[in-house]
Amino acid sequence: MAATGVSGLDLYVKRDNGSWHWLGIGKPDSIENTVTLAEGLSQSPREYLLYLPLYNGIEFVKIGVPASFMIEPVPSDPRKPIVFYGTSITQGGCASRPGMCTTAILGRRFNREFINLGFSGNGRMEPEVAELFAELDPLVYFIDCLPNMAADVVAARVEPFVKILRKAHPDTPIVLAEDRTYDDAFLIENKRLRNMESRKALRIAYENLLNSGTRNLYYQIAEGQLGDDGDGTVDSSHPTDLGFYRQAEVYQLILENIIKGSSSGL
Amino acid sequence: MAATGVSGLDLYVKRDNGSWHWLGIGKPDSIENTVTLAEGLSQSPREYLLYLPLYNGIEFVKIGVPASFMIEPVPSDPRKPIVFYGTSITQGGCASRPGMCTTAILGRRFNREFINLGFSGNGRMEPEVAELFAELDPLVYFIDCLPNMAADVVAARVEPFVKILRKAHPDTPIVLAEDRTYDDAFLIENKRLRNMESRKALRIAYENLLNSGTRNLYYQIAEGQLGDDGDGTVDSSHPTDLGFYRQAEVYQLILENIIKGSSSGL
Repeated sequence: MAATGVSGLDLYVKRDNGSWHWLGIGKPDSIENTVTLAEGLSQSPREYLLYLPLYNGIEFVKIGVPASFMIEPVPSDPRKPIVFYGTSITQGGCASRPGMCTTAILGRRFNREFINLGFSGNGRMEPEVAELFAELDPLVYFIDCLPNMAADVVAARVEPFVKILRKAHPDTPIVLAEDRTYDDAFLIENKRLRNMESRKALRIAYENLLNSGTRNLYYQIAEGQLGDDGDGTVDSSHPTDLGFYRQAEVYQLILENIIKGSSSGL
Repeated sequence: MAATGVSGLDLYVKRDNGSWHWLGIGKPDSIENTVTLAEGLSQSPREYLLYLPLYNGIEFVKIGVPASFMIEPVPSDPRKPIVFYGTSITQGGCASRPGMCTTAILGRRFNREFINLGFSGNGRMEPEVAELFAELDPLVYFIDCLPNMAADVVAARVEPFVKILRKAHPDTPIVLAEDRTYDDAFLIENKRLRNMESRKALRIAYENLLNSGTRNLYYQIAEGQLGDDGDGTVDSSHPTDLGFYRQAEVYQLILENIIKGSSSGL
């Protein structure tokens, strides 16, 4: 993974037409970095969005502007955020910049806060995590943990996890996502089986939840999430920037449908 | 740039339908690396394509297969290759894998040899380089050097370069490509000027060549090469995997048109 994704800052600016556009990268080259994110800008007021690193933590970020400029925080968005829970893929491995992971792309498209709770190697849907997630009050819960869960774990944990969220939030839409297809699964039997078995377990859990009366529960199929030419991943599992872009296209559709169908939180 | 792009190997396989599909990455983690590119394959005969690293040189690559398998070289393609000459962008910075640079993507789509003569920081169209390039006999020369050449250098070197190639190859199609737009040029004046001035110089050189009777000369405009959302580059200049994909889409069109219109070498 590129250092710009692991440890970089990523700056976007809102254009006059209201859309977000990339503006500058803070390339890291040591533990503490001082970088120019952008220079030569005219003095019009603009809204900026700064993404923090995808993997490395930060101790502090200080932003400097020339003396003739001023900078002030944008008021918080009062609308509910969309929460993603998942694995290294959700977290943003292997994006080349922090603004290129799926939740970042979607956040700009929806112009709404997305909370990225991707935990590299640890998206496992434990009940303790469900209790913590239930403390949030999002517009949508989007759960994309299958790449970190084999079929037996899926069978054991998905239903209890959803029930804990549902108890705290009777109506909040919840999406259960199938895992992205391994990009070598078309030729390698054990990868194909791994995809197939965990999806089968997820589908059963989903149907059990529906049959027990759970509503506002959505299902994101695997097909097409990262494309089908093999160029959606770096290593059969983690997206290239092209893969993240494709995944955002797919997730945008289901989220738009959910938001259109939702009576609250818009 | 990710180590998998700088120093990795990248394996593709031809599927039954004739299209190339990614199969495995050789991740580097030291000076000398031993990696499993793919395992668990069935024993059918298949054609493979192995890309060498985009930046680091190699001393040797040895390929091992299980004793029950065999491997042999594919016969050389007798058809003429397509030659790209350019900068770090042509060379493949910042692709996450060697198979994701523009010439690699196009090579798979056309199923034809592409020779990548991208020289990071050094695509400058010197007459000495033209003499060397004239020794090749490609189907098409695609020249994409503007990111390494300011307007005065463009004005001085493009016409002599083309004339040297043209002398050796009276009919071979030559493409002169405008540079990709800096992804922050919409807001940063000196980037916009840099793009604009070198393109103006290229356009003049192109028209002078046409007016002096040069034929089979093509011009690739800048617009849309990497998209217009800012997510086509890592750093305003070097493509993300999404940017390479978009550039391949654009270059595919002009190359298809040239090949369709060409009477030779198909």
